[in-house]
Parts: sequence; structure tokens; C-alpha cells
Amino acid sequence: MSHITLAHGNGGRFMRELIEDVFARHLKNPLLDIKADATTLPADSLNGDIMITTDGFTVQPLEFPGGDIGSLAIHGTVNDLSVAGAKAKYLSLNVIIEEGLELAVLERIVVSLGKAAVEAGVHIVAGDTKVVPRGEGSGVYLATTGIGIKDPTLDLGMHRIQTGDAILVSGPVGDHGIAVMLAREQFGLKGDIQSDNANVYPLTQSLLHLHGLRFMRDPTRGGLATVLNEIHTCSGFGIRAHESSIPIREPVVSVCEILGYNPLYLACEGRVVTVIDNAQAGQALGIWRSLEQGKDAAIIGHVSSSDSRVILQTELGGERYLEELEDDPLPRIC
Amino acid sequence: MSHITLAHGNGGRFMRELIEDVFARHLKNPLLDIKADATTLPADSLNGDIMITTDGFTVQPLEFPGGDIGSLAIHGTVNDLSVAGAKAKYLSLNVIIEEGLELAVLERIVVSLGKAAVEAGVHIVAGDTKVVPRGEGSGVYLATTGIGIKDPTLDLGMHRIQTGDAILVSGPVGDHGIAVMLAREQFGLKGDIQSDNANVYPLTQSLLHLHGLRFMRDPTRGGLATVLNEIHTCSGFGIRAHESSIPIREPVVSVCEILGYNPLYLACEGRVVTVIDNAQAGQALGIWRSLEQGKDAAIIGHVSSSDSRVILQTELGGERYLEELEDDPLPRIC
Repeated sequence: MSHITLAHGNGGRFMRELIEDVFARHLKNPLLDIKADATTLPADSLNGDIMITTDGFTVQPLEFPGGDIGSLAIHGTVNDLSVAGAKAKYLSLNVIIEEGLELAVLERIVVSLGKAAVEAGVHIVAGDTKVVPRGEGSGVYLATTGIGIKDPTLDLGMHRIQTGDAILVSGPVGDHGIAVMLAREQFGLKGDIQSDNANVYPLTQSLLHLHGLRFMRDPTRGGLATVLNEIHTCSGFGIRAHESSIPIREPVVSVCEILGYNPLYLACEGRVVTVIDNAQAGQALGIWRSLEQGKDAAIIGHVSSSDSRVILQTELGGERYLEELEDDPLPRIC
Repeated sequence: MSHITLAHGNGGRFMRELIEDVFARHLKNPLLDIKADATTLPADSLNGDIMITTDGFTVQPLEFPGGDIGSLAIHGTVNDLSVAGAKAKYLSLNVIIEEGLELAVLERIVVSLGKAAVEAGVHIVAGDTKVVPRGEGSGVYLATTGIGIKDPTLDLGMHRIQTGDAILVSGPVGDHGIAVMLAREQFGLKGDIQSDNANVYPLTQSLLHLHGLRFMRDPTRGGLATVLNEIHTCSGFGIRAHESSIPIREPVVSVCEILGYNPLYLACEGRVVTVIDNAQAGQALGIWRSLEQGKDAAIIGHVSSSDSRVILQTELGGERYLEELEDDPLPRIC
């Protein structure tokens, strides 16, 4: 059979074969037991605070320049643990497949997912597949839940943010959103923009020893502007960002100008926004810039006591508010 | 707004309000922090082996006699931990909503999910929502990942099964499959069959002190016949079951006769199949029958050294093979 049928989800022979031939084969690791109802996590691997997070993935198209829904499903969840200061260790994987999906496409996605898991050093330890009828899905949806370990003495969070703190971003914003949008070919635009889809653990881990580190978040849905609004809402402080400091690639700027998007609201899938004591901001920037993944990092603004909102200082010296996102500029990007 | 829009999934204000007003409100517990990227599990609650499992839910219709996709998403994952000998403690929740879903329906499902979680003593500690365009979902899909704790000295599994062991089922089979099928009204049949959708922890926990307990599994997709085939395949032993001993409700038998279904292949969502040393089978049966949930429990067969397949002894004295399921009698029942 070259395509998924409803029988691949019925608990019988076809489902067993799909799980053995596609999922177990490419996601193989010592802890993945496809015949067990539940798996025991090795106790000696769980020293520290145990953290959990979860994320769903419905991106369209399933494959795009720089990644696919499989690698995204690993990075999205690994990154949520990483920005919380944890090291991702174990993942569960849910797969909801639409009847009629080409098996070859599913296999490419699972191979990519397995490769991203190995590179991030995480084991897939539990999984489930469901098949929904044609017209009630869009190829495949994924959901991953991650378990990670954090140093119990590490305290990161909105509550640590103080006025005067610096805000850093680890690289150009908007690449993922524009790469996925161009892959849809709905606007007749072409470009060679790659998604920034990546494991950010090397970036987050590199800053954990800095005592002035307050808070980290990956700017996915809603982009950088949404993270800045979340910081403002949760901390109660204002934020002043400098438009000219925010790294954005030239082709992303061009596409945004043509289509009327604001790149600050577009999703990244491999960037980190960090709030850090201003006294250590230069040191953090140096560390990031020494990493390939952080070579375009920048200090983009500061937490401010004199502002009461998120304010963007424009290149011409003007000011405008970065509001909380209302309508959806680019749906289905993750 | 009375219906879900794509903007409810975009990371902005509508999504925040949906999460606050529907999910956080009904799933509230001290560990659920909707503003955090990841949550720390309290270390003092994790004494024992830490187990993990995951399950996806795509049942149609979303609501049916005896339950809905919300309570099912709790029980399905809690039950997988329970039959592994663990006590479920924490759950993550993924929600994939179709644009156009009535908010009132979503809220009923979340309320039911929250109620089932409280009753099962589990906390929802991480969540994610996505919205997919109209026609690319079917109302709502759920996925839950569960974390549970098991006594490290407890050893359950296929590897412990021996010839001569007894096989028990905790109650009538096929109720869930038929209840969901009748709720679709596609055959013009009516009936008052309720799904058996329930938390099986009271059943599994009641047997854990029996040293002869070998293995437990909940017969969901593929039903009792599929569990018997899994036991046969994994243990290498034959199985002899007695048709007259298998509890099936009369209305389930009637509907199956009309539509040509075999109830042994239909899903249960609140039953347990147990393999136990024959010397303790009577004791286990007594324990189960003393519980409301297990009052119709029965010893349905034995692990056999003289058979090489799963054999059903019929009421008239004949024999037939219970084969591994191939085609799908009733898709989308969980």
C-alpha cells in the first residue's frame, strides 16, 4: 500500500505494521517499547527538577525550506524546555494522520523527526497514532510532550525581570513565517528564505552560568512583538525597543513590504529572546555571537520604568506602540 | 464570539482569552501556569518509578451516551498508566480545534475533561491549543500524555505470562464501540447503551498485591480479541477462551447481530483484561466482583500450552480462531 487507509488506525494488523515499519524503525531507541502501555523513565537520568511541556503542530505545507513538521515537532518542544533553563531528555509523540496521505511523505517526516531527536539528544519514549477520514485532517498533525531536567538552583522567570534589564534576540526574526508562507506559493512569490527551525539548547545553555540572566522565551506564534507584550503584561514594566537594532534579513523585509506584514509579529522557530541584567548584556551578546547559531544576535532594547507599554523607537527617531496581536497575519505556521 | 475562529490560534489576544476563559478556568490547579513555557513537577510527588504514556483522541461524535472526547482523553491515558501498575499523577493536554466549532461545545468538553481529571486525581500541568481551518479537522482532536508513579518492586508484563495462567475481564465488552456507533445515528438504530468510558485505576490497584498478577491491558481499539492476540504474539503461548464466559450485554449482542459486528473486536474504554496465576484467579475475581465497576467480571479463558493460536470455544462445543484484526469494523471510536 502506498497511501494511508483508515485500517492503519484500527488497532489491528495494518496499524501494527505501520508502527513497526515506519515509526519504530526510524525512532528506535532503547526506551521505545511499542508493545507496552507505558514506559519507565530511567531514574538515574532524572537528577534535578523534572520539567514538562507540550506543543501541537499543524503547519502547512508539511515540508518547507529549512524543515518540515517532523523536525518542528522536536524543536518546538525541546525549545520550550530549553528556554525554561532545562535540558530536554524524553518526548512522547502523537500522530494524527489523514486517510490518503502518501506513505512516502509520512516516512520522510518520521525520518526527519528521528534525526532531529538524535541531534537534540532526546529519546521518543511513548507514541500513539490515529487515522482520520479524508477531508478531516490535512495530511498529518503532530503533538509532542517533553520531559526535561533543570538545575534546581536556577531561577528564571518573569518575576526576576527588573527595570534597566537588557533584551537580546539571538538572530534574525521572521524567517520561519516567511519561509512557510512562500512554500505555499499562494502569492506567486519565490525566494530562497529558509526557516530558522532549530534546537536552541546550545544558545540557552551557554547563558545559564550568568547570574544576571532573568528570563528566556522563544518567539514562535506571534513573533518577537508578542514576547515583548508578554514581558510587559507579566512584569508590569514598559519596554523600549530600537527598530534599527532588530536583526531582520533583507529578503524577509522585502516580502513583508510587498504583502504588508510586520516581521516583528512573524514566527521564529530557532531564536531566543533573553532578558538579562544590563551589566551582563555585553557578555551574553559576546557568548552568543561566538556561536554559529547566534552570530547575528543583538541587544534590541531595555525594560523601562518610564514607559507603560511596548514602544518601538523607529529609525527616523519616531515612536510607535507594538500592540498585542489581534488578527492573524499568517495562520498555520507551526 | 460564539464560534472558534482562526484568530483563536494565532498567539495573540483571542488565543489568550480562549485559554484563560475556557481552558485555565475549568482545568485550574496549582501547577497549571498558562504563562510559562514549561512546568516543574513537585519532586516529593515522584517517589517510585516514573512512567510515561500518550494517547490521541479523534472520536466521532464528540459527545455520546456515557461520555465525550474530554472524559475519554483523561481516562484513555490514565488507564494506560493504570494497567502498567502505575498511579497517574500529571497530564499534558494538546487540543487541535477546527475553525467554526461552537464555543459552547468546546466548553462542555473542557468541563467534562476537568471533572474526569479531578475524579482520577490527576493534574493537567501543560497544554497547547491549535486552530485548523474549517474542513481540516472534525470539531476537536485531543492528545494527552500522562506521567505516573509505580512501585519499583512491581514487575508486570508479557514476559511474566506462563501457561496455565487465567485470563480475566473486568466487565462486559463492546459497550463503548456500540454506544458511539449508535450516537452517529447512521444506521437508524436506537438504543440505550452507555459507553463504559471510566477510570480503571480502582480495578487495577485492587489486584496489585497479588503476587501471581502477570499482566494487565485495557481492551480499547481492536477490543478483547486484539488483546488476546497481542498476548499470544508477545508471549508465544496459545490462548483458549470460552465464548459463554465472556460478558456481553444483551443489547450489544442484538446490535452486533443486526449489523454483522463481532463484539469481541469492539472497543471498551473502562475495562481491564488481566492475566494471573490460575491459583489466584478466584481471589482476583472475588476482589473485582466486590467493586461496583467489576461486578460483572469473569474468568474468560486460560493461557494454553497445547494451542498455538487464539482459540474461542463456542457455546455449542465448536472451536474457531480469533484472528488478528484486519479491516476496521468501527473507525473513530476513540
